Amino acid sequence: VGAAHYAVVSDAHVGPLHAARVHAALTAAGPASLHLVPAGEASKSRTRWAELTDALLAAGMGRDGCLVALGGGVVGDLAGFVAATYMRGVPLVQVPTSLLAMVDASVGGKTGIDVPAGKNLVGAFHQPRLVLADPDVLATLPLAELRAGLAEAVKHGLIADADYLAGIEAEADDLLARNPAVLERLVHRSVEIKAAVVGRDPLEAGERAILNAGHTVAHALERVTGYELPHGLAVAVGLVVEARAGESAGHTADGTADRLARVLGALGLAAAPPAGTDPEAVLAAMATDKKGRGGRPRYALPEAPGRMARAADGGWTLPLDEAHVRSALDHARTGLSAGPADV
Amino acid sequence: VGAAHYAVVSDAHVGPLHAARVHAALTAAGPASLHLVPAGEASKSRTRWAELTDALLAAGMGRDGCLVALGGGVVGDLAGFVAATYMRGVPLVQVPTSLLAMVDASVGGKTGIDVPAGKNLVGAFHQPRLVLADPDVLATLPLAELRAGLAEAVKHGLIADADYLAGIEAEADDLLARNPAVLERLVHRSVEIKAAVVGRDPLEAGERAILNAGHTVAHALERVTGYELPHGLAVAVGLVVEARAGESAGHTADGTADRLARVLGALGLAAAPPAGTDPEAVLAAMATDKKGRGGRPRYALPEAPGRMARAADGGWTLPLDEAHVRSALDHARTGLSAGPADV
Repeated sequence: VGAAHYAVVSDAHVGPLHAARVHAALTAAGPASLHLVPAGEASKSRTRWAELTDALLAAGMGRDGCLVALGGGVVGDLAGFVAATYMRGVPLVQVPTSLLAMVDASVGGKTGIDVPAGKNLVGAFHQPRLVLADPDVLATLPLAELRAGLAEAVKHGLIADADYLAGIEAEADDLLARNPAVLERLVHRSVEIKAAVVGRDPLEAGERAILNAGHTVAHALERVTGYELPHGLAVAVGLVVEARAGESAGHTADGTADRLARVLGALGLAAAPPAGTDPEAVLAAMATDKKGRGGRPRYALPEAPGRMARAADGGWTLPLDEAHVRSALDHARTGLSAGPADV
Repeated sequence: VGAAHYAVVSDAHVGPLHAARVHAALTAAGPASLHLVPAGEASKSRTRWAELTDALLAAGMGRDGCLVALGGGVVGDLAGFVAATYMRGVPLVQVPTSLLAMVDASVGGKTGIDVPAGKNLVGAFHQPRLVLADPDVLATLPLAELRAGLAEAVKHGLIADADYLAGIEAEADDLLARNPAVLERLVHRSVEIKAAVVGRDPLEAGERAILNAGHTVAHALERVTGYELPHGLAVAVGLVVEARAGESAGHTADGTADRLARVLGALGLAAAPPAGTDPEAVLAAMATDKKGRGGRPRYALPEAPGRMARAADGGWTLPLDEAHVRSALDHARTGLSAGPADV
């Protein structure tokens, strides 16, 4: 990606580890600037978006510049939205440094920021020109973040490839030990699955919605915990809760939720929301989910591991009676079934 | 455009004239909401964009909603940018009520807001699903705004159709008298010219830049006047100044600037910047124009009426030595030539 100005965006965690090297390499190629934002979801705000835009304008970057997002999902989403809206769009290169960003956030062109009403409610589709993923940088990734990325890989197995799901379970220990070859294979297969789905439906008119498996519940959990619960960990809970609700509603094969809970457990991922989470608050938060239609939340539900359920009209998301979701949330909190459908 | 929620965005001038009717018609079709912003360029701000977005979220509009921009260019640009970024994009219907918006702003998918560093520096390409232009509403348009729209029509003649330019001059009196048939023909031909250019180059990778004829100078004039000078009137000045600079630089046929000044004059449009405008401030403002490359402003210049000049590399914009632009600005201010090239 040739450009008259490279603007590297990174955060306070990743910057010290990698940004100087990347910035120096780009400076050798021409004008470059480095922009650091605080680490954490709170940086996905309108305020940071405006500040970053103004900093690029002050640095004199024109339409012939290029943004380089060096970091995890937060940096990618924020820098991506800046790139999407800077002078009506400038090229973007994603350099994901977390497993979550490598297998998920950096691929597919979704960018966005959070607003008081919810996460990612403002954003744009803006495909990166290039994604550079180097699994070696995962050696320094905190374990909790490694697990968060593995949750999305489990999702990829669930939605598209039962063998991949089984492989993740079988190789759980190697993955947690950061065996480079095993991690590289995982990144490769996850990107392959995601890119195939996105390639068939880039703007989420239909099938792409299956990538939101677990996410209706996950986003609500993140909101009610004030985004204290990391995205990947919320997805782990969401996958199990939505599968269990799908089972009781008759869309999902019995045993799918327990199977998911086992795989996630092998990776050290909890299938229960944080202690003290109020299920009614979670249900209320879902009512304004942007995947909803006419104010009713929609869910991308598995039919069975490796295969997604279809709506009667051919669509890829379904509504669920609130009772099924409430019961599944209760099961996740207490480990107890609420009714006969939850055997 | 079928949608679960129609959100009509209008301003304090247009709203009282037309919004109630449009809103009532849409309410009959399903849930609808009406959102008014203050009239004027100042509404193209990050603050209004955020407020409008939050109002739509509060109104419960989902991804299956649709924005209806009812007004002039400001409403179209602002509502368009909200539509482009609301949940990563929702459909947009443009209902332009000014001549400027009918012949220019509502066609082609450019949306944007202003930031302290300049106009339209933040935005996105977001094509409307539908543009509904009713020339009858022009009966109530203030004369200055009618003229502002005619300036863009003159630009369309300049860049693509010398006969159209001649026709505008010949029918100037009918246009100013708002002869409905003559106005309708003008809207039709201008949209035809613009749509053809945009259709060949939707993302402004090349040829679309010719629609920026006059605009490098115009945007700078708007900035140095604190956006007191309306866009269309700034374009009128910009067309003449850029053509004259193009003549002295040898890109533009002699007489083009004077010809443009005559046509604009017949429409009651001044070819001179407002009294007291500092040419050096205009030149400084152009240095950060987003059409620039490597910090140097670019210009879409006529070769002659109806035909645009090409760069040596085939591109559609050219740089100009500052001396030519300074001299052309001086000519516009004083009516006097600064040097032998300006005979």
